[in-house]
Amino acid sequence: MEILITYDVDTTTPAGTRRLRRVAKICEAYGLRVQKSVFEIVCTQVDWMLMQRRLLDAIDADHDSIRVYKLHTGAFSNAEHLGHSPPAPHDTPLIF
Amino acid sequence: MEILITYDVDTTTPAGTRRLRRVAKICEAYGLRVQKSVFEIVCTQVDWMLMQRRLLDAIDADHDSIRVYKLHTGAFSNAEHLGHSPPAPHDTPLIF
Repeated sequence: MEILITYDVDTTTPAGTRRLRRVAKICEAYGLRVQKSVFEIVCTQVDWMLMQRRLLDAIDADHDSIRVYKLHTGAFSNAEHLGHSPPAPHDTPLIF
Repeated sequence: MEILITYDVDTTTPAGTRRLRRVAKICEAYGLRVQKSVFEIVCTQVDWMLMQRRLLDAIDADHDSIRVYKLHTGAFSNAEHLGHSPPAPHDTPLIF
């Protein structure tokens, strides 16, 4: 599965800043950061269920939001990048 | 076409803040803001070419970045939203 994750975390409080770091850390464990709060994830359905659980535990549902786009295979390599520092393309899971 | 646009604009300068507003305004003219710097665009190929030109003119390619994901039809309505204020779903062009 190719999943695009975008998030907005309310960092107006120290707790929000901690949540932001936690969300980023979870996403980094599963995929590639392509912009500040945008990650490209290539994983299995089971990985996604685990990841989703961790993300739900990490955010404050009243103040933060995460959007999840399940894309067709090849969507990442077809993505266009305008401007500064495009990431290295990847199509394989990055789970260590 | 369903296009997902995400952007990072360097707002460490007043000029950057102006670029951010311009990029957001262009995206708002063509689609639906679903997070601070994430827009869902439903448009024709011609609209996209015009929009892309305007976006390229608006950003500083050395400091800002825009990612463009061309999605399969239905990707927006299948998107999952975790947490705060999901947007109204839309599948039709929002060009006024």
